[in-house]
Amino acid sequence: MQTRYRQIVETYWQAANARRWEDFAELIHPEVCYEVPQTRERIVGRERYTEFNRTYPGDWRIEVERLVADDQQVVSKVSFATGEHSCVGISFFEFRDDKIYRIVDFWPEPYEPPVRLIHGVERY
Amino acid sequence: MQTRYRQIVETYWQAANARRWEDFAELIHPEVCYEVPQTRERIVGRERYTEFNRTYPGDWRIEVERLVADDQQVVSKVSFATGEHSCVGISFFEFRDDKIYRIVDFWPEPYEPPVRLIHGVERY
Repeated sequence: MQTRYRQIVETYWQAANARRWEDFAELIHPEVCYEVPQTRERIVGRERYTEFNRTYPGDWRIEVERLVADDQQVVSKVSFATGEHSCVGISFFEFRDDKIYRIVDFWPEPYEPPVRLIHGVERY
Repeated sequence: MQTRYRQIVETYWQAANARRWEDFAELIHPEVCYEVPQTRERIVGRERYTEFNRTYPGDWRIEVERLVADDQQVVSKVSFATGEHSCVGISFFEFRDDKIYRIVDFWPEPYEPPVRLIHGVERY
């Protein structure tokens, strides 16, 4: 399952980048649940979730930077770029019947570091 | 390696919660590199990194909510709670010589959702 799930997520991002929305929807369970804990948003159902992605504004492109898969879950870390701006997306995927059944998505934004109590914290 | 690395990360969070800093340091490679891409902070070296955690302010407690491990990497999603406030931490771990060699840490904060182009995005 580890390899299978990994492949599903690789294909998912390839289909999104190529705007192949039928292939994309093919990977998604009819009762998929997509959640963004940072905004407390939720989208339920394959058609609605595919439409959300299909209509997402901008000439965006996803690059997969990390993919970690075990027998039950996959995590991807992607760069989501529109023109010169890019941000990081981290997605946790769960599966049912070999389809993506749950996605929990995080979009961590830059912030100013707090005061640190030790010396030797570098900035890059 | 999958099981071994998973155990290392489980033990890492247990040691942190218990403030057992010698056990914690035992899991860390002498040349560990810790990075927070959101602030572009970096800490290099086991002693400095252990000290960073040991002196981290607040009566914090970590609860591991997800752990995904493959043969090379582990990802943990934790809740980091101090009193009534809690936030989410997502950490990518890499290994060398059976020690934690690289940590890339994300702390995604809540934000207001943008306008969405589809109907049916719920809030929870």
